[in-house]
Amino acid sequence: MDLAAESKLYCDELKGKINSYGLEITELSTHLQGQLVAVHPAYDLRFDGFAPDTVKGNPKARTNWAIEQLKKAATASKHLGLTAHATFSGALLWHTVYPWPQRPQGLVDMGFSELAARWLPILNHFDSCGVDVCYEVHPGEDLHDGASYEMFLDKVKGHQRACLLYDPSHFVLQQLDYLQYIDLYHERIKAFHVKDAEFNPTGKSGVYGGYQDWINRAGRFRSLGDGQVDFAGIFTKLSQYGFDGWAVMEWECCIKSPEQGAREGAPFIEKNIIEVTKKAFDDFAGAAVDEGFLRKVLGI
Amino acid sequence: MDLAAESKLYCDELKGKINSYGLEITELSTHLQGQLVAVHPAYDLRFDGFAPDTVKGNPKARTNWAIEQLKKAATASKHLGLTAHATFSGALLWHTVYPWPQRPQGLVDMGFSELAARWLPILNHFDSCGVDVCYEVHPGEDLHDGASYEMFLDKVKGHQRACLLYDPSHFVLQQLDYLQYIDLYHERIKAFHVKDAEFNPTGKSGVYGGYQDWINRAGRFRSLGDGQVDFAGIFTKLSQYGFDGWAVMEWECCIKSPEQGAREGAPFIEKNIIEVTKKAFDDFAGAAVDEGFLRKVLGI
Amino acid sequence: MDLAAESKLYCDELKGKINSYGLEITELSTHLQGQLVAVHPAYDLRFDGFAPDTVKGNPKARTNWAIEQLKKAATASKHLGLTAHATFSGALLWHTVYPWPQRPQGLVDMGFSELAARWLPILNHFDSCGVDVCYEVHPGEDLHDGASYEMFLDKVKGHQRACLLYDPSHFVLQQLDYLQYIDLYHERIKAFHVKDAEFNPTGKSGVYGGYQDWINRAGRFRSLGDGQVDFAGIFTKLSQYGFDGWAVMEWECCIKSPEQGAREGAPFIEKNIIEVTKKAFDDFAGAAVDEGFLRKVLGI
Amino acid sequence: MDLAAESKLYCDELKGKINSYGLEITELSTHLQGQLVAVHPAYDLRFDGFAPDTVKGNPKARTNWAIEQLKKAATASKHLGLTAHATFSGALLWHTVYPWPQRPQGLVDMGFSELAARWLPILNHFDSCGVDVCYEVHPGEDLHDGASYEMFLDKVKGHQRACLLYDPSHFVLQQLDYLQYIDLYHERIKAFHVKDAEFNPTGKSGVYGGYQDWINRAGRFRSLGDGQVDFAGIFTKLSQYGFDGWAVMEWECCIKSPEQGAREGAPFIEKNIIEVTKKAFDDFAGAAVDEGFLRKVLGI
Amino acid sequence: MDLAAESKLYCDELKGKINSYGLEITELSTHLQGQLVAVHPAYDLRFDGFAPDTVKGNPKARTNWAIEQLKKAATASKHLGLTAHATFSGALLWHTVYPWPQRPQGLVDMGFSELAARWLPILNHFDSCGVDVCYEVHPGEDLHDGASYEMFLDKVKGHQRACLLYDPSHFVLQQLDYLQYIDLYHERIKAFHVKDAEFNPTGKSGVYGGYQDWINRAGRFRSLGDGQVDFAGIFTKLSQYGFDGWAVMEWECCIKSPEQGAREGAPFIEKNIIEVTKKAFDDFAGAAVDEGFLRKVLGI
Amino acid sequence: MDLAAESKLYCDELKGKINSYGLEITELSTHLQGQLVAVHPAYDLRFDGFAPDTVKGNPKARTNWAIEQLKKAATASKHLGLTAHATFSGALLWHTVYPWPQRPQGLVDMGFSELAARWLPILNHFDSCGVDVCYEVHPGEDLHDGASYEMFLDKVKGHQRACLLYDPSHFVLQQLDYLQYIDLYHERIKAFHVKDAEFNPTGKSGVYGGYQDWINRAGRFRSLGDGQVDFAGIFTKLSQYGFDGWAVMEWECCIKSPEQGAREGAPFIEKNIIEVTKKAFDDFAGAAVDEGFLRKVLGI
Repeated sequence: MDLAAESKLYCDELKGKINSYGLEITELSTHLQGQLVAVHPAYDLRFDGFAPDTVKGNPKARTNWAIEQLKKAATASKHLGLTAHATFSGALLWHTVYPWPQRPQGLVDMGFSELAARWLPILNHFDSCGVDVCYEVHPGEDLHDGASYEMFLDKVKGHQRACLLYDPSHFVLQQLDYLQYIDLYHERIKAFHVKDAEFNPTGKSGVYGGYQDWINRAGRFRSLGDGQVDFAGIFTKLSQYGFDGWAVMEWECCIKSPEQGAREGAPFIEKNIIEVTKKAFDDFAGAAVDEGFLRKVLGI
Repeated sequence: MDLAAESKLYCDELKGKINSYGLEITELSTHLQGQLVAVHPAYDLRFDGFAPDTVKGNPKARTNWAIEQLKKAATASKHLGLTAHATFSGALLWHTVYPWPQRPQGLVDMGFSELAARWLPILNHFDSCGVDVCYEVHPGEDLHDGASYEMFLDKVKGHQRACLLYDPSHFVLQQLDYLQYIDLYHERIKAFHVKDAEFNPTGKSGVYGGYQDWINRAGRFRSLGDGQVDFAGIFTKLSQYGFDGWAVMEWECCIKSPEQGAREGAPFIEKNIIEVTKKAFDDFAGAAVDEGFLRKVLGI
Repeated sequence: MDLAAESKLYCDELKGKINSYGLEITELSTHLQGQLVAVHPAYDLRFDGFAPDTVKGNPKARTNWAIEQLKKAATASKHLGLTAHATFSGALLWHTVYPWPQRPQGLVDMGFSELAARWLPILNHFDSCGVDVCYEVHPGEDLHDGASYEMFLDKVKGHQRACLLYDPSHFVLQQLDYLQYIDLYHERIKAFHVKDAEFNPTGKSGVYGGYQDWINRAGRFRSLGDGQVDFAGIFTKLSQYGFDGWAVMEWECCIKSPEQGAREGAPFIEKNIIEVTKKAFDDFAGAAVDEGFLRKVLGI
Repeated sequence: MDLAAESKLYCDELKGKINSYGLEITELSTHLQGQLVAVHPAYDLRFDGFAPDTVKGNPKARTNWAIEQLKKAATASKHLGLTAHATFSGALLWHTVYPWPQRPQGLVDMGFSELAARWLPILNHFDSCGVDVCYEVHPGEDLHDGASYEMFLDKVKGHQRACLLYDPSHFVLQQLDYLQYIDLYHERIKAFHVKDAEFNPTGKSGVYGGYQDWINRAGRFRSLGDGQVDFAGIFTKLSQYGFDGWAVMEWECCIKSPEQGAREGAPFIEKNIIEVTKKAFDDFAGAAVDEGFLRKVLGI
Repeated sequence: MDLAAESKLYCDELKGKINSYGLEITELSTHLQGQLVAVHPAYDLRFDGFAPDTVKGNPKARTNWAIEQLKKAATASKHLGLTAHATFSGALLWHTVYPWPQRPQGLVDMGFSELAARWLPILNHFDSCGVDVCYEVHPGEDLHDGASYEMFLDKVKGHQRACLLYDPSHFVLQQLDYLQYIDLYHERIKAFHVKDAEFNPTGKSGVYGGYQDWINRAGRFRSLGDGQVDFAGIFTKLSQYGFDGWAVMEWECCIKSPEQGAREGAPFIEKNIIEVTKKAFDDFAGAAVDEGFLRKVLGI
Repeated sequence: MDLAAESKLYCDELKGKINSYGLEITELSTHLQGQLVAVHPAYDLRFDGFAPDTVKGNPKARTNWAIEQLKKAATASKHLGLTAHATFSGALLWHTVYPWPQRPQGLVDMGFSELAARWLPILNHFDSCGVDVCYEVHPGEDLHDGASYEMFLDKVKGHQRACLLYDPSHFVLQQLDYLQYIDLYHERIKAFHVKDAEFNPTGKSGVYGGYQDWINRAGRFRSLGDGQVDFAGIFTKLSQYGFDGWAVMEWECCIKSPEQGAREGAPFIEKNIIEVTKKAFDDFAGAAVDEGFLRKVLGI
């Protein structure tokens, strides 16, 4: 990251090399670093594993390190000619996600103010690099659905770089309407993870999952095509709204091997890609249409 | 109407008399006159039946007569202390509702411009009377769903008096999501018709109905409680959004007698009325909450 | 058309040429001419675009021209060895499809009488050519569902050539049960358009569509496999009832390009074609079955 | 039965006495005797319990006794002024209901021929008494759904007295569409049992039920209002088709006490009764409608 | 609590007084104290509000206080002649409910071991008092579904007093199958809260809820009859399994006033109560049944 | 069978020959012989067709012959290196599957006792051969669902060889939940038939089928992929539970030809096979995890 942020030359070479294999770098990702921008103490111990030794056990230093990492990722993205960047928001409030015990008045507001304060300098730097920050909306993060994203967007005053990575699998697991979500937020969706999931609640377990392993949870991730995500609906809506980013396959499955998942996943995505039509069937194919003609049709 | 528009005294007496029976005038309605504000020639013959003889066969005069009637209804409403008024928008475009043959480009725009031009003086007069015009969104009218209402609202530049009468039965018959409709338009809903309906398509008929009589249509109106409308959901949403108008029963049923419909309808509505709670369960019932407390909960 | 109707030789040559490319002429179509057999004045201006200049602005002449065209299509079909013909019925009543204002008593009956009177000579000519007239049941036409088809069939006294073209996409858009439709009318289905569609109503719009363009309507056409039509169910039922006509792909999609639609559509149809079995599992594979055996099994 | 069949006087007195309590005899029932008209030997032992001692162990005599009983019931019904009669068809084929082992060709045809032969004299006698035989379509009987009823009706050449008793509970238990059933057979429905049922299949059991007791079957009967039967839909359809027989409550519940079931059942039925309307909303309320008017509306 | 635990006399008097009003004490509840048996530090501040001042800020002392409170509740229950007791389990693991970051191996096992160690002495004391501990399975608690309850039950070696309070509202909010839950755990269900709820996910929010207030969450509690809980199904299953505890109304609604909720809730419950039948329809009403008879029916 | 039971050498040669074509013997099947282990007299005539002439008309001898055949199949399976065997249970009670007339008390118990007595020696012999008896749970057999299987298992005291062949098509036809069935019985499922089916009830017919041919039954078998079976769900569950037997295609379709069914069926199965993953996403990827670390995460 350091090198890529410092040297445009290095990035050009890297990109050239990768392109020479017929591959593309679609976007950089800083999920772990983004997560470390905001960590509630209850999660410190477990998240320290993602931090370098120098800042472990020192949350303040860890936060600063994470912020710098994000900025470098912005510069590196610019050097690589990328316009979107994938990350997590981090979380100060996640342990209060179910309102028992009740949240004291003002808590949520303060939490989002603090989160926005940490992210604003990052967003501004991304803006100067011409790159969108795409938050992967995800449980465990303060940005875990549309409602929480809207609160954040308010706090950063609708910052144009505070955008979204769309991954429907996380919405299946919380039973959010992931198609209507596109209707609501499509202007902000700049990155897209193609990941499948299923939710099969029983008399034993629902969304919360009883602390079970992935294979025994009602909601779990699946290989592409094996879950319940309506990808035809998603690709239709993204095409309709003119999304032109990458469809990036993400694989995480508790049943099928990664090899089979990869082998089947690439053609699965290809099959879903829509070449957008230029033909409309709305055009009237009749006589010359002038104002008089229209007035006659309307009878006015 | 003439009398009520001219004389506040008459209105006071009328109101007093009606109140003396334990009744209320909830709002005036000009569905037929509103309809005549805009009529496409294809419907002239059939709509002339709602016009006075003096303007029959003379569409231009009929339109002017209708506009004057609407204005009088505004004044009469003011005299009666009413703040909402029920009506139809009329239609210039309804014969083109299915786009075969295609609509020439510009047709819809011109139709709504003309419709708005006819309604603007009416809306302004209603505004001066402090009364909302509540369009009953209805097939046959240019305002027949949310999309067409939005086009009209654009043309009247978001006029604050261009409001809505909510009647879910017409949405069941066109399979529009009448609960989400409240989420979208609740700020404009100022009147409410409680009318039930059902839609039971078969292999023989769907929404369009094959020119059948009401009893043989897939979509048809029913007495309250006999149809498919989720009134519990509707009363919940209207209560949540603070609607405080009247719930006006409308009866039109192709099966049950009007007597039984009325007998059952009134208690049906009463059972659905929600007294709104003042108690919230979101309040934290703990120690004194100051900024320091909140910061500790957030770990910042 | 003139040439094909006049010259069997020309038709033989045309057919030979087309067959030489490995192609088949499946049926001729006169949708536009059939439409012009009956046009209500409210649609005159827009439908004149489909008529030759000589009859434009002259509805009576246009009707006669259309009737002659249909007859020629019958003869041409015979010359080409075809047994089915696709067309529209035209419409006199479509502007009254929603019963507001109410339809005067007798109106529907008179409309269908007139429609039948215009079609009867056409049907008789088709009969003499041994060709079925297959009406594409379609909104905008008087024959737009099973109920309206039945009224027409009554008026032409069950004419054996008054048959159906089955296109499920138009039934999805009006929420008619297109599988049960096959159960009801399979004996009359002689042509089949394989066209996909979807219907996704929202709080903003339902079946009527608010005068929106195709891409913004709740009901819209899609490329094969991208919509909601249960083609497996359709091919099963048509196979079960012994339909042996062509499965003709029709493409009209507001999202996907025609090239991709065509590329995917042909194998889509091929995958759905059913080779009908000759094996039944109902046969008793036991001892010789005579009356005595059966009586013993029944205990009589 | 003997007395009622012989003496009109006795019947008049009985009826008068019953009426004097404010009660009505709605119809007589011979379910057990009807069952004995046709019994396959596999069920002889268990059904002998319903026969008088004189014919026990003698199937032929038992059949004749049953036929005579039915005829007496017809005469008794006439004496009581009743026009409908409830019964079972009996069964020769029920043990072959699942086609394993396969049914030899001709078996079903022979079974229904025999069944019809036994019932024809009964039906004729009922006809002479002016009373409809209403078969309760029921598992265990050869008449257990619409398909088997149609085969029987064919064999009795569409006998006008071979009618139906409609009891939706038996259709829930076999997952037959009991609302569409009314559309198909309403002209033959002359009696109606109001009985509720539910079907809750699990991973352990489906329709067949694993030889469990009623309480442990996926399909089971319930008290009125506690099951899954859509009685609102049923009463609507029966009203629409002009059914004017009695709605007879039948109670059989594996959970709730008969006392509570009765207490709740009567008002449940009363609440569902529909007083049919005489008002139609299809009428055009306009100018005088003559042929010229209609022609103008159609533009012809 | 102290007094009730110490004095049987006091309890007798209290009970007598309450009974004299026609009321019953159904069970005691220690939700808040049970919660304090196990609190993760991330929730210390907010839960201290439920503890007496003497143990605030001292988690260890608070835990001990809570354990003693529970024991007193057991004794008091015995004094009052009660056999079931309602409480919460508390939680050490709730902040890890979503497995991001991943839970280290052994964490869940250790958490439940500790929880069981704290509860075992309480359970034993309840056992000596003849009272069942009924955990209200609830988000925020370590016992929040069937899977987590089973883990706990394993750790307390299937302690016979580790029972369940059934409240379906908490299962609606996590989309757990609350009817199948009764099939799985009915032997342990000893208390029952009748509380309604609804879950209406949108494109904005799903189960997790975006830190919104109750009224704006997809899952929220409702007054009895206004939510989505299938109480008919619940009362049926509890009756079928012989549950004979109280049906205790719990009211918490974000829309309707508590007065209306109470007024409607009591008759709602009454209407759902099932008097269990003693009549079975499985009995064969035939000839004397001996072994020979059965062998003949089976053909063996 | 005789040869294979007697000669290991023959079996080795047979197996070698078959393997040389790239094929495998997956298991032997004795559906017809298993059926003959228990036949109620009502089915004697029709089942005699599956018996050799020497035992026809002699049920006792036929039973003994069937039992011997089963034993030979066990030995032959051992010789062929097979560990699972497919068969039917036969039936003594099937004619009583619907409880009308009621089943006398003790009947079901006696039937299953007799059935178990006949199968126990067979099961013991299979055990000595190391082969599982896999009953195809099927209508017409006493083992036709989970409930009846459990009764049988009780009677053979949970014999470890009394296992199951899983064929979801028979569950679709009785509307049993075939996915939950795997959750309940996966430990006993040792064989698997991949067969598709559909159930489309109408107003004419439900599960029982009105004695119609297969093509006219609401429930009927279909070629793989053409029915309603959720094979993705089935293969997922079988993979999750570690099933490692064969997925054996069974074809029986009333619509599609066997050639097309076979051509499409093999790749259909291949596409559904899941290579099980070895990667879990539950692992914590952090610092060294010792007890102290865990205690800190829990706050204890």
